[in-house]
Amino acid sequence: MIIKMSVTATEEELSHVIERVKECGCDPHVSRGVEHIIIGAVGSPDKRNELEALRVARGVEDVIPITDPFKLVSRQYKVGRSIVKVGSVNIGDGAPVVIAGPCSIESRAQLLTTARAVRDAGANMLRGGAYKPRTSPYDFQGLGVEALQFLKIAREETGLPVVTEVMSTEDVEIVSEYADMLQVGARNMQNFSLLRRLAQSKRPILLKRGLSATIKEWLLAAEYLLMGGNSQVVLCERGIKTFETETRNTLDLSAVALAKELSHLPVIVDPSHATGRRSLVASVSRAAIAVGADGLIIEVHPEPERALSDGPQSLDLEGFSQLMDHLDEPLPKLARTVAVAA
Amino acid sequence: MIIKMSVTATEEELSHVIERVKECGCDPHVSRGVEHIIIGAVGSPDKRNELEALRVARGVEDVIPITDPFKLVSRQYKVGRSIVKVGSVNIGDGAPVVIAGPCSIESRAQLLTTARAVRDAGANMLRGGAYKPRTSPYDFQGLGVEALQFLKIAREETGLPVVTEVMSTEDVEIVSEYADMLQVGARNMQNFSLLRRLAQSKRPILLKRGLSATIKEWLLAAEYLLMGGNSQVVLCERGIKTFETETRNTLDLSAVALAKELSHLPVIVDPSHATGRRSLVASVSRAAIAVGADGLIIEVHPEPERALSDGPQSLDLEGFSQLMDHLDEPLPKLARTVAVAA
Amino acid sequence: MIIKMSVTATEEELSHVIERVKECGCDPHVSRGVEHIIIGAVGSPDKRNELEALRVARGVEDVIPITDPFKLVSRQYKVGRSIVKVGSVNIGDGAPVVIAGPCSIESRAQLLTTARAVRDAGANMLRGGAYKPRTSPYDFQGLGVEALQFLKIAREETGLPVVTEVMSTEDVEIVSEYADMLQVGARNMQNFSLLRRLAQSKRPILLKRGLSATIKEWLLAAEYLLMGGNSQVVLCERGIKTFETETRNTLDLSAVALAKELSHLPVIVDPSHATGRRSLVASVSRAAIAVGADGLIIEVHPEPERALSDGPQSLDLEGFSQLMDHLDEPLPKLARTVAVAA
Amino acid sequence: MIIKMSVTATEEELSHVIERVKECGCDPHVSRGVEHIIIGAVGSPDKRNELEALRVARGVEDVIPITDPFKLVSRQYKVGRSIVKVGSVNIGDGAPVVIAGPCSIESRAQLLTTARAVRDAGANMLRGGAYKPRTSPYDFQGLGVEALQFLKIAREETGLPVVTEVMSTEDVEIVSEYADMLQVGARNMQNFSLLRRLAQSKRPILLKRGLSATIKEWLLAAEYLLMGGNSQVVLCERGIKTFETETRNTLDLSAVALAKELSHLPVIVDPSHATGRRSLVASVSRAAIAVGADGLIIEVHPEPERALSDGPQSLDLEGFSQLMDHLDEPLPKLARTVAVAA
Repeated sequence: MIIKMSVTATEEELSHVIERVKECGCDPHVSRGVEHIIIGAVGSPDKRNELEALRVARGVEDVIPITDPFKLVSRQYKVGRSIVKVGSVNIGDGAPVVIAGPCSIESRAQLLTTARAVRDAGANMLRGGAYKPRTSPYDFQGLGVEALQFLKIAREETGLPVVTEVMSTEDVEIVSEYADMLQVGARNMQNFSLLRRLAQSKRPILLKRGLSATIKEWLLAAEYLLMGGNSQVVLCERGIKTFETETRNTLDLSAVALAKELSHLPVIVDPSHATGRRSLVASVSRAAIAVGADGLIIEVHPEPERALSDGPQSLDLEGFSQLMDHLDEPLPKLARTVAVAA
Repeated sequence: MIIKMSVTATEEELSHVIERVKECGCDPHVSRGVEHIIIGAVGSPDKRNELEALRVARGVEDVIPITDPFKLVSRQYKVGRSIVKVGSVNIGDGAPVVIAGPCSIESRAQLLTTARAVRDAGANMLRGGAYKPRTSPYDFQGLGVEALQFLKIAREETGLPVVTEVMSTEDVEIVSEYADMLQVGARNMQNFSLLRRLAQSKRPILLKRGLSATIKEWLLAAEYLLMGGNSQVVLCERGIKTFETETRNTLDLSAVALAKELSHLPVIVDPSHATGRRSLVASVSRAAIAVGADGLIIEVHPEPERALSDGPQSLDLEGFSQLMDHLDEPLPKLARTVAVAA
Repeated sequence: MIIKMSVTATEEELSHVIERVKECGCDPHVSRGVEHIIIGAVGSPDKRNELEALRVARGVEDVIPITDPFKLVSRQYKVGRSIVKVGSVNIGDGAPVVIAGPCSIESRAQLLTTARAVRDAGANMLRGGAYKPRTSPYDFQGLGVEALQFLKIAREETGLPVVTEVMSTEDVEIVSEYADMLQVGARNMQNFSLLRRLAQSKRPILLKRGLSATIKEWLLAAEYLLMGGNSQVVLCERGIKTFETETRNTLDLSAVALAKELSHLPVIVDPSHATGRRSLVASVSRAAIAVGADGLIIEVHPEPERALSDGPQSLDLEGFSQLMDHLDEPLPKLARTVAVAA
Repeated sequence: MIIKMSVTATEEELSHVIERVKECGCDPHVSRGVEHIIIGAVGSPDKRNELEALRVARGVEDVIPITDPFKLVSRQYKVGRSIVKVGSVNIGDGAPVVIAGPCSIESRAQLLTTARAVRDAGANMLRGGAYKPRTSPYDFQGLGVEALQFLKIAREETGLPVVTEVMSTEDVEIVSEYADMLQVGARNMQNFSLLRRLAQSKRPILLKRGLSATIKEWLLAAEYLLMGGNSQVVLCERGIKTFETETRNTLDLSAVALAKELSHLPVIVDPSHATGRRSLVASVSRAAIAVGADGLIIEVHPEPERALSDGPQSLDLEGFSQLMDHLDEPLPKLARTVAVAA
């Protein structure tokens, strides 16, 4: 922690801060610059909060943290990459996985039709919402336990492991009975009660990035899970809120590259929510693979124009099959240099 | 709902859309423009989702909602302004209220000292966190039930009604035993399980705006509460996430004015979280009153530099007292026109 | 400047960085912490760029600036507050000024009618656009020199000093002939060629904050003007771009308070562009005065529904007159504490 | 244009609006819904502004545009894709081009060393800044004409066409003498004077997206160029401003896909400014190619740690060569479905 004294700080104020740094169990290193006096507080990183509060001590202009607040998710803690197993599927082993299925589970037929089609097209896992977080209370809220039962049937029929969202601590048990992987939605990324409960679960967790969460806040949400005992965590970038309204959200693929630089956890991408536009899903999916994502989670519906949620961003069965083909196409060759020195 | 056909739409595609509009129980009004054909879907606003899904029907370029999705919170539904009663305090009756207290309750002494001081300075209610939503799992997470007990003592001693955050459906019952008003934090604004549970509570709710929630999303979160049976809801603007990093968040006072234009619910402002800087709290508080806010919620700590959370934005007891005086000062007089026509 | 070495940095890499710090004319202060080695580079703040480039030196994890990059605009440089004179009007002397007029000057009659009305209602200065920065090339681009001539006539008739936008270095001379104050629009806040040219002007400058400019970037834009010789600068907050779309921009009143804390320059507020909604202008204007703004700049049009630009946010003549009355009303009295200790 | 009347609108107000729509030369189509009356204004899209101003007519709640404001840049106007020729290089013909070079031109040696190295590694064009838009007036502002002369020498030596930024209308002529392509920087995307001047230039233009420009605002800036006579325009996505601070900006690759869906113009990507981090440039560059970008523009410096600007995001010569190899690598193969139906 670096403490920057203001230009008008008195020696007395400086002494007080030095004293407080020592009380926090840290060693104060004082540098007197041309304009500012700087105190480096060395040691005891767990005194972070107490040191940060010195921002309001008299004579202090700023307190600047210099270490990252996350530990267990970091590559300092674990050098190699984590692989998360969901049934027979490995996420993070170098071969990107594709998770596909409807936004909401609307009926047994809808789910089974979709499940078979996505499996046939090459998907590795099935997604489908039983409990839906909806902005409006007047929107379809999901079929609940009935949908979980359909998921179980679909898994039995297709062999695909299933992932579904859990919205409340109270539902963790029932959802865990039916699902192979539990999803924390973007709106719940900082629902710390839910995170603490899921930390005790034996199920792997798919942790979506919050709508306005920084990369570090996202990693700290994962830290709650690891610290509580569950290290089977997959991160999912799904677009962030920005001023741009042409796309539903703004997909942040640099965040995928950076999350993999900072953390050993696998990172996948949700191109459906990120763009909100069916026509962009395929090209953005390719970009996600190219940037190094460990997988994709894609919304597919047999009849998007009759979907009860997220129709505009859902691929139909044929569209998903084309997407899978498209993901296998090679990148275009670069233009060759035609430059000739004079 | 307005459906805009693309310039290349065929008559067949148009017929299909018209058919679907009728299936949704709406009446299609077709306008043929120079470039685009427009279909107005008139009637049955509860078919919103089904109509929106037509965005992916062939030949459709866009589907544009024209009605707001919230009802019970709107001024169409209730013309007069709602007043929310918390103990003997009325929020929304024209006289702004001040809620003050520490971010976290750290000890009985800390809370009681603060409670007495803010009461003496004129505060109407006491705030204090027992369960703290913290970005990092390594940060102080609150004293829980012990803190609730201190709150009860503080209320008995000072007579001030108390508000505290509830983070989980499981805690609603215990928190309701101790607190006069339950706060939903910004990170939980779209924790729909929690909203549904609180809709059944008899306690008034303080609903903070989410970090990246639009005004309409905020009102829809309140709609969950009203629709579920609890109309004792106070909205709280506490700053939104933007690119600006000099302040902790960006306080959106236009949103206060607009929320009051769109809804009958009272709206208060949290200048502490919005700015994250003690030096800005007083001037921003005055602005909030001037824009029409029904109250303020302000962080106060006897010794901010030793606070376990949010020290940098907390006022000390003397600072709070000065703030209260400052709120009573008149606005500066405008410059007089010195213009003289030639 | 603080240089943070990575945990894996070698002694050789450390030596190299220390050497480079010395080459930059700075004194390296090394603190060895538990996890990281920190080097404070003391002295020669003008080597900022060279030191920042060390971010890519081997073994360096981060380089953290600790001094603000602006000087002449800061309160360290000038302790008292600057007052900018525009004709007989003082901006920044404690009595807020009101600048009013149409977005675009559309005709002589339109401008004169507005000018007389705003003067009669108490405005101190007249605004009006001759050159309009329009997002679309198909929108009305302003009447140019003809509009400048109307401004001159309006000033002669009403005695109000006038401010108008200059969009290009080439227009600075002609606009300076007619206007008392030159406005730099939000889209040109970082048009550095224009800033350099205006630094040589003798006219006072109204510098709008860029649509996504941080407070520090805004102050650095002003620094271009002061460094080039023009210290007659008024800052204008006019809303920033955020995810919120209900208002045209998000008014950042905390930025007004902070800009006045960091700088000696006057700061005014444009509630019209900030909100884009006529109904919010009055309450937001009061908030601006309450937060400490030195003035307001407000769009007024005799017939907003026929305005060639910005009609939705323009007040009509009657509305402006009511606004001025509203600005004189006292703040509402706070609720009195009814608390009684048990 | 859709005009939505408020629920409280009177018949008289409705008649007035209908009259105004006719005055604007449009045909009013009235639909009476359950809650709202809607008027479709059909015809004469050039009356956009006048119709939008009706938002403030009595009884009107909202005015909703239904056509895009850009024309010449759209795929409705030109169905095929545009190819922009810069010397012997084709941008937009399916084979992505790579433009590389230093942020600032610092010396003849620095530029020539870089130019030869990037050519040898396969770059198609050379970039380098002569006039630098710098946030702070105290930062290196570029060598100006001297740098332009170095660019000319570098082109002669390497055969690579060169692109450089022009910041002011006054510099267009001199820069055009030396450069093959003129760049409009992000901060100047809405410098309409500059756009109008460049519309008359015979040089192709590289138009960077503004820091907070929506996709539509970006296309409208290009529309200024095409409308003025210059259709040799390449769009460049370079990251937008968001709340995320770990990366310098947030790269918006969905915008690349969408810009290509909406417009016939080529679109390239600047991964250096977008991320601001050298370590992310390679993976993000691959993603850009995968999403369909027509090229990349990358900052390369022989000695980034001594760069006078943008060192942290510049690749060194070896790093650039590795990047080019990396761009040729195939995408990873997807995980194979291991699912077996029960």
